[in-house]
Amino acid sequence: MPYSRLSDYPADVLARAAKIRLACFDVDGTLTDGRLCFDSDGRESKAFHVLDGLGLVLLRKTGIAVAMITARDSTIAEKRGAELGVEVHTRIADKLARVHEIRERLGLALDEVAFMGDDLPDLPAMRAVGFAIAPANAHAWTRERAHWRTVARGGEGAARELCDLLLAAQGRLEALLGDGNTPDSSIVDGGRS
Amino acid sequence: MPYSRLSDYPADVLARAAKIRLACFDVDGTLTDGRLCFDSDGRESKAFHVLDGLGLVLLRKTGIAVAMITARDSTIAEKRGAELGVEVHTRIADKLARVHEIRERLGLALDEVAFMGDDLPDLPAMRAVGFAIAPANAHAWTRERAHWRTVARGGEGAARELCDLLLAAQGRLEALLGDGNTPDSSIVDGGRS
Amino acid sequence: MPYSRLSDYPADVLARAAKIRLACFDVDGTLTDGRLCFDSDGRESKAFHVLDGLGLVLLRKTGIAVAMITARDSTIAEKRGAELGVEVHTRIADKLARVHEIRERLGLALDEVAFMGDDLPDLPAMRAVGFAIAPANAHAWTRERAHWRTVARGGEGAARELCDLLLAAQGRLEALLGDGNTPDSSIVDGGRS
Amino acid sequence: MPYSRLSDYPADVLARAAKIRLACFDVDGTLTDGRLCFDSDGRESKAFHVLDGLGLVLLRKTGIAVAMITARDSTIAEKRGAELGVEVHTRIADKLARVHEIRERLGLALDEVAFMGDDLPDLPAMRAVGFAIAPANAHAWTRERAHWRTVARGGEGAARELCDLLLAAQGRLEALLGDGNTPDSSIVDGGRS
Repeated sequence: MPYSRLSDYPADVLARAAKIRLACFDVDGTLTDGRLCFDSDGRESKAFHVLDGLGLVLLRKTGIAVAMITARDSTIAEKRGAELGVEVHTRIADKLARVHEIRERLGLALDEVAFMGDDLPDLPAMRAVGFAIAPANAHAWTRERAHWRTVARGGEGAARELCDLLLAAQGRLEALLGDGNTPDSSIVDGGRS
Repeated sequence: MPYSRLSDYPADVLARAAKIRLACFDVDGTLTDGRLCFDSDGRESKAFHVLDGLGLVLLRKTGIAVAMITARDSTIAEKRGAELGVEVHTRIADKLARVHEIRERLGLALDEVAFMGDDLPDLPAMRAVGFAIAPANAHAWTRERAHWRTVARGGEGAARELCDLLLAAQGRLEALLGDGNTPDSSIVDGGRS
Repeated sequence: MPYSRLSDYPADVLARAAKIRLACFDVDGTLTDGRLCFDSDGRESKAFHVLDGLGLVLLRKTGIAVAMITARDSTIAEKRGAELGVEVHTRIADKLARVHEIRERLGLALDEVAFMGDDLPDLPAMRAVGFAIAPANAHAWTRERAHWRTVARGGEGAARELCDLLLAAQGRLEALLGDGNTPDSSIVDGGRS
Repeated sequence: MPYSRLSDYPADVLARAAKIRLACFDVDGTLTDGRLCFDSDGRESKAFHVLDGLGLVLLRKTGIAVAMITARDSTIAEKRGAELGVEVHTRIADKLARVHEIRERLGLALDEVAFMGDDLPDLPAMRAVGFAIAPANAHAWTRERAHWRTVARGGEGAARELCDLLLAAQGRLEALLGDGNTPDSSIVDGGRS
């Protein structure tokens, strides 16, 4: 499934993806599989995926801004964001308002913003931005309203699929894979994903 | 799979769901995937799902009482319940007796109560209430005796499927999804699921 | 998949299962999915399944001895065993020798012993006992040499499938499910699985 | 799926596997399922698989060197490596350079080295060595450039599949499984996998 070739994507999806300068990601169910793990001492944990991590770093290194936006109070997302060099917004009840704040700060129009989410709290932002993406596991009400749906489930590489699409649509794959299809190590090795 | 439209549900299931004022959930195998994780320091952990969390909050906000009922001594379930504003009953050997206590306190008849469970300790309660639901992964002896079985497995959105059904059967989807299919943020955003 | 009816099992499997007085279980890959989780503070964790827990308790209550036998040094298995009232043997390099010790203590013949395992260290014991069972996920070399293979994977109910078979083959389902298929709560509710 | 018979493997894969004296493994996504779990106290965790553990021990005991090579700063991989008697290289930005260092220390040629990885940071090493293997879940860009792909996913036995292939290609299965297909306990029992 070499989903990184331009011919693999619908034309309208490529057109939307080509404009994106800011990619926003919900956390639970999008960058994770939606599981919220609790232990008997009151700790919470959740799992991100190494494939997604490299994808976010590659976006950042090719000049596309990245933000995580979650309704939960999550030191976990903050830690993962710090590791990847990505800004993290927690306890956000109104995700659309936050998207507008980030976008205005960066001087971007709505059609330059992508939002990937899996459930109702993501829908207002997804309906406003230029490119709305849902992971394979998204709730039906949200999945039906996205412009594009990934093959992978949240927390299992769904975000990476979006990153690959954005890189392909913006002609950045050549630089990444280099001559003879060897990745450019100065780009790839820098982020420990 | 837009399982939230009335035409997607069997008539008898809709009839049972329309009456429910109290939804009871087993924990392990129903709100979780049944895994009981232990660490070498003696801690226990388990994983709830973010989709289910929003579902329980939506039930509560539309006036349907929610209770978790588990045989285990689980501070974990108590913590998750507190986060969602849902009452949690732990160390319950006789779940049917506990269902009767809650139902009588709320002044409800048995056909106004739903019980979702996955194994033998849930069967007496499931056989007594008006609407018995099993997640896809339920043990065969229990699954065969439920009025309805979800597509999703426990801990992966099975409870949310029941919540969606209850909301649909009671005509609450319009308010939720609002005009133009944009969710009403005052309902959705309040619970951090 | 009502795998608990006598007609669902091959005759030779039922014949073997009818004689069992001691059921031995490997831990990693059999009572768990084989994952060994480590954290950055040096702790180890693993996940048992609630379906299996009730199965082991039901075996014990109907007079079939149960033992967990693992090569690892596992306080985790010991804790889970204590919770279920089941004896746990850890750091066992020679599982067959340990099976002989337990069996002799209980005064049982080899055809009264079942062993469920998933990999090479389990094979000597599996080849010696009267009934050898492999979970669906077992390594091919071991799976091919078992008398019976479960549909479920280890850590997802494989052990419960064996428990159900043993109870069915020994005519204990009637007592368990009771009249009108209501489980006998004195049997079921006692073990918090 | 008895994938351990010589007739199950393509001839060119067997030819590559027959020469291997050093097997290198990426960690996240190869020896694990790629999940990076974080808790609210800042701890990280990840899960190895018991099947893979025994495979690495069997390789080592039959004289094939084994190394884990990861870009992350991972005390977790170090702990698992120590348990298996396998050398672990962490914080490695340039995995190919590290492969060369290990191979030169052991006096091996490139066609005596195998590398199993799942994503772009593994590609330079995979393109240089004599035998490049990708787990079933590998990112497409990497999977397409491997000599062989396992049926199992990373962290669920993919590494064991490679170990079985190497043992089969080098005629070591007879000793392992012994007469009458009983494993030689002196080989199998030593490593607690």
